[in-house]
Amino acid sequence: MAQVIKGIAASNGVAIAKAYKLVDPDLSFEQVTIDDVQSEKGRLEAAFSVSKTDLEQIRDKASQNMGAEEAEVFTAHIMVLEDPELIGGINNVIETEHVNAESALKSVTDMYIDMFEGMADDNPYMAERAADIRDVTKRALAHLLGKKLPNPALIQDEVVIVAKDMTPSDTAQLDRKFVKGFITDLGGRTAHAAIMARTLEIPAVVGSATSTQDINDGDILILNGLDGTAVVNPEETEIKEAQKESDDYNAKKLEWSKLKNEASVSADGKKLIVGSNIGTPKDLAGVLESGSEGIGLYRTEFLYMDSAELPSEDAQFEAYKTILDGMGDKPVTVRTMDIGGDKYLPYLPLPKEENPFMGYRAIRISLDRTDIFRTQLRALLRASVYGELWIMFPMIATLSEFRAARDIFDDEKQKLVQAGVAVSDDIKLGIMIEIPAAAMLADRFAQEVDFFSIGTNDLIAYTMAADRGNEHVSYLYQPYNPSILRLIKNVIDAAHKYNKFVAMCGEMAGDQIAAPLLLGMGLDEFSMSSTSVLQTRALLKSLDSKEMAKLAEKALNMDSNEEVKKLVEDTLNLK
Amino acid sequence: MAQVIKGIAASNGVAIAKAYKLVDPDLSFEQVTIDDVQSEKGRLEAAFSVSKTDLEQIRDKASQNMGAEEAEVFTAHIMVLEDPELIGGINNVIETEHVNAESALKSVTDMYIDMFEGMADDNPYMAERAADIRDVTKRALAHLLGKKLPNPALIQDEVVIVAKDMTPSDTAQLDRKFVKGFITDLGGRTAHAAIMARTLEIPAVVGSATSTQDINDGDILILNGLDGTAVVNPEETEIKEAQKESDDYNAKKLEWSKLKNEASVSADGKKLIVGSNIGTPKDLAGVLESGSEGIGLYRTEFLYMDSAELPSEDAQFEAYKTILDGMGDKPVTVRTMDIGGDKYLPYLPLPKEENPFMGYRAIRISLDRTDIFRTQLRALLRASVYGELWIMFPMIATLSEFRAARDIFDDEKQKLVQAGVAVSDDIKLGIMIEIPAAAMLADRFAQEVDFFSIGTNDLIAYTMAADRGNEHVSYLYQPYNPSILRLIKNVIDAAHKYNKFVAMCGEMAGDQIAAPLLLGMGLDEFSMSSTSVLQTRALLKSLDSKEMAKLAEKALNMDSNEEVKKLVEDTLNLK
Repeated sequence: MAQVIKGIAASNGVAIAKAYKLVDPDLSFEQVTIDDVQSEKGRLEAAFSVSKTDLEQIRDKASQNMGAEEAEVFTAHIMVLEDPELIGGINNVIETEHVNAESALKSVTDMYIDMFEGMADDNPYMAERAADIRDVTKRALAHLLGKKLPNPALIQDEVVIVAKDMTPSDTAQLDRKFVKGFITDLGGRTAHAAIMARTLEIPAVVGSATSTQDINDGDILILNGLDGTAVVNPEETEIKEAQKESDDYNAKKLEWSKLKNEASVSADGKKLIVGSNIGTPKDLAGVLESGSEGIGLYRTEFLYMDSAELPSEDAQFEAYKTILDGMGDKPVTVRTMDIGGDKYLPYLPLPKEENPFMGYRAIRISLDRTDIFRTQLRALLRASVYGELWIMFPMIATLSEFRAARDIFDDEKQKLVQAGVAVSDDIKLGIMIEIPAAAMLADRFAQEVDFFSIGTNDLIAYTMAADRGNEHVSYLYQPYNPSILRLIKNVIDAAHKYNKFVAMCGEMAGDQIAAPLLLGMGLDEFSMSSTSVLQTRALLKSLDSKEMAKLAEKALNMDSNEEVKKLVEDTLNLK
Repeated sequence: MAQVIKGIAASNGVAIAKAYKLVDPDLSFEQVTIDDVQSEKGRLEAAFSVSKTDLEQIRDKASQNMGAEEAEVFTAHIMVLEDPELIGGINNVIETEHVNAESALKSVTDMYIDMFEGMADDNPYMAERAADIRDVTKRALAHLLGKKLPNPALIQDEVVIVAKDMTPSDTAQLDRKFVKGFITDLGGRTAHAAIMARTLEIPAVVGSATSTQDINDGDILILNGLDGTAVVNPEETEIKEAQKESDDYNAKKLEWSKLKNEASVSADGKKLIVGSNIGTPKDLAGVLESGSEGIGLYRTEFLYMDSAELPSEDAQFEAYKTILDGMGDKPVTVRTMDIGGDKYLPYLPLPKEENPFMGYRAIRISLDRTDIFRTQLRALLRASVYGELWIMFPMIATLSEFRAARDIFDDEKQKLVQAGVAVSDDIKLGIMIEIPAAAMLADRFAQEVDFFSIGTNDLIAYTMAADRGNEHVSYLYQPYNPSILRLIKNVIDAAHKYNKFVAMCGEMAGDQIAAPLLLGMGLDEFSMSSTSVLQTRALLKSLDSKEMAKLAEKALNMDSNEEVKKLVEDTLNLK
C-alpha cells in the first residue's frame, strides 16, 4: 500500500503529478583561508551573475502571473546584486582577510542585515531592505556552494509543490500551467497558501505536519484537495480512481459554471445573495467572471498597505469609483480601514503590543486618527454616486463606537453637500460582527445600523480565545461549534426582528458544511472568494431552507464541532 | 483652587500626606578621560559600598514587610556588587582606557547585560540576571553622579507615593506605617499596583496619566481612593472635608468588621457565600481574619512560578494540605495550573506567540503536558481528605477539553485508590467560565460539571476583544456592558436549570456596582480579595434579591456600560 499523508483540505480538486520540493538546501559552510584572491573574487562574481539571471527570469514569470507590481520585489533583489558598495565590501574582505567568498559574503551581508534590522523599529522599510539582502545572500550562497535552490518560477513540468509553508513571494512565482497543486506542513484553511490555491483554482492540502519529510523530490503524488489527503507513489489502481474523482469534480465544476447568470435561490424559492470578497480593484475581473451578485467585502486596507504613504483622498476615490462603476447596480460593501492586529503600515507606526489581535486596530484606530478616517469617508462619499455603496465599520465592540463613526460620516457628508459635491443619499451603514460583545448585543445594534456582516474568522478566534494563526491552538478554530452557531443565530434573529439585512463575509460563508446551516438560520448574503461563488450557488439551489432550519435547530443543541459536522455530512450525504 | 488630578479609583480610603515621588533621576553622564586612575577606582569602590548599604537596608525592610522570600531579590543585587569579576572588569577599563568610573561601569555592565539577554531565549533565568545587573548599575551610577535614587524602603515619614507605575519590587519595599497611599500615571483597577494597594488596605488612584508631571516632591496631597482623585496642595477647608470623608470611611470599615462572624445573607434572606481569592498558603491568615466563607479561587500557578523547577508532588501536596486543613469545613476551590498568557515559568519554555493571550496556556498546556497535570491532580487528590476540595480547570473552551481533564482526574483517582491511598469521594469538579464559547454553551456544560466559576477579567477581555493590559484599548474593559451581563446571566440560568452552583472569582465579584446586579441575576458565590469580603457582605445584606432581579433585567436591556453604571448608582444612591 502506498503511504497516505493526511492534512486539511484547503482547496478543491484532485491532481496527479510529480512532487517538487520547495525546501531550502543546507547552506552551511566552513570559513577557509585562501591564497588565490583573484580566483575567489571570480567565484563571487560568477555567483552574483547567475543569481541575477535567476532573478530576472523569476521576475518576468511573476510579472506574467501576478502583475508587474507583485514582481517589483525581485527588481529590488536584482538591485542588491548590482550594489557596488556591497560587492566592493565583500571583495575587500576577501582581499584583506584572505577568506573564501562564502565567508566574506556572509560576514558583509550579515553586517548590513543587522544594521537595517537595527533601524527597523523607527523605519519599517529597513526591515524590507534586510529581508531583500537575506534573500539575495541565500541565492548567491547556494550558487557558491553548488547547491540547487528551488526556483518555483522556473518550473517547466507539471508538479505538485511540497513545502513547509508558502510565502506570498513563493506563490507569486507559480505558473498555473505547471503547478497542479500544493501540500504544506503548516497552515490552516485560512492561511495565505490556502487562499492563494483557491484563487488559482488548484487543489491544496495544508497543515499536513510531515509532508516535507515523507515526500521525496520526484515522487508521484495524488493530491486530493477534496478530502485533504496525499498518496505518495500510488499503485496503478489508485491513480485510476483518483483520475475518476478528478474527472467527476471537473464535471461538477462544469455544471456549476452553467449557473453563472442565474440568481441564487434555495430549492424552496428563498432568494439569496452570493457575493464576492475582494482586496483590490484588480479583483473585479474575477468577480464579474464568477457570476457574483455583489461584493460583500472590499478590504480597503490593501489601498493602505500597497502604498508608501497614506493614500490620498483622490487615489482612494479612484479605486472606489472603479469598483462601484464596474459593479453597476449590484451592491458593493466597503469595509473601512482594518489595520493593526497582524497588518502594519510602514508609514504609520503602531504601538508595540503584547496581544495585537486584542489591541489597537481597525475602527479603534479610525476613531483615534480621525484625520485618516475622514479622508477615507470623503473618498467613499464622493464615489457613492457611481454605484450601490454600503459602508461597514470593522471591529465594532460597543454602540458608542458605531455612533461615533456614524456621526463622523454624517458630518463629512453634510460638509460635501454644502460644498456642492454630489453624494448618494442611499448609502447603507453597517458593522462587522466579529467581536462577541457585538454579537451578544445584536438586538440593540439592529435598531441603529442598516446591516450586519458577520466576520467569522475573527469572531471564532475571540469566541474560542484562540489565535487561528497559532499552530498550538489552531484546533480551536471550530466554525461548527454550537457556541459559534448560537452567536450567529442571535445576530440573524436580532437583525430580522428589526428588518435588517445580514451578510457573512468570513471563510465560513463559502464552507460546504456551514452554508446549509447558515441557510437554515436565515442568512441573507453569503460572501466569499469569487472562485467559490458558483459552487455555493449550486449548493444553495439544492437545499430546502425549511429543512435546513430544522437541521440548524438540531445543530444548535449539540455539544461539539465534530458532532455538528457529522450531522450535516450524514444528513446531506456529503461523505 | 487647588489642582485636582483625576484617575481610576483603585483602592478605597482617603489619605492626606506629603508626596513622595518614586521617579528615577536623570542618570546621563559624559565620558571623560582621567589621569588619576587610583582616585577613579576609589570613587567606584565608594559608590559600590554605599549601594551595598542601601540594599542591605532595603532587603531588611522588604523582609520585614513581605517575608524573607520576597526579599531575596535584593540579596541577588548585593551579590552583584560583590562580584570580583565584575569589579575587576570595571577597574580594568578605568586603568587601560583612562575613562571615568561612570563610563567604565556602564560599558562593562552593558556588556554583561547584552550577554545575559542574548542567552535569555534559551534560559529565562538569564533575563533575571540581566535585570539584576541593570538595577545595581542604576544605583551605583546614581551614587557616582551624586543623584538621589528614590528608596521607598527607607521612607520614614507619612507619604503618598507618586509614580509612573509600581513594580512588584517597588511595592515589596513599602512600609504600611509610612506609606499612606499611592497614585500612578499608568495601570488600571486590575494592575499589580492596584491589587497591592487593596491588599495593604491603603487608598490608591491609578491611570492618572499626569500625576508625576503635576505633583512635586513634598506637595501636600489629598488622595481619594473612593472617587479616584488627588488634590494637590489643598486649601484648609478641603483638608477638613477630606478628613471627614476619611473618618466616615473608617467608621464604615468599623461597621463592616462587625460582620466578620456573620453569614452572608441578602436583605430578603437569600443565603450567599462571600469567599476569598488567594495565591499562596501565606494568604490564609488574611482569609481567616476576613471572615471569608471559603476560598473561591486558589491560583496554583504561584507554586510553579515561585520555584526553580516543576514543583514536586509532595511540595504541592503540602501546600494544598495546609490550605484545606486551615479552612476546615469551608470549601476551597483550587484552579489547576494557569500558565501562559502573561505568565511564564523559567524552566518550562513556551512557544513564542504573536498573541499569547489567545494561545497555548492553562488547560491547553495541561492537556498537552499531561505529566505536569497528573502530578498536580495526584497532589490534590492526596490532600483532598484534609478538607472540602473543589477543583476547577481554567480556560475551558470546549466540552471535549473538560471531558479529557475529567478522564485524567478519574484515572489518577482510581490509581491512588488501588494503591490504597485515602482520597475524598466528594471532590467537586468544575470549570472556569472565562472564554465566551463556554459561556454560550453553559447549558451543555452544566449537565456535566459540578460547578462554574466565572472569571470576569478574561471573559471581558475576550468578549470585548481587548487586552486590558493595553492602555490603548483599556477603555473597553467594561464589566457592566450589557453584552457581558447577558453572558453571565446565560451562565447562571444554565447552571441553575441543572441545579449547579455558580461562583464568580473575577475582579467584578467585589465591585460595588456589579455585585447588586450579580445578586439580581442569582449568583451563588462572590469571591474576591480578602480585604473586600466584609464590605461586600455588608452591601449584600442591604439588598433585596428580588428588587435586584428587576434592576438586572433593566440593565440587560440597556445599550452601554455607562448607562448600566448610572442605573445602579441612581437606584442605590451610590453617588
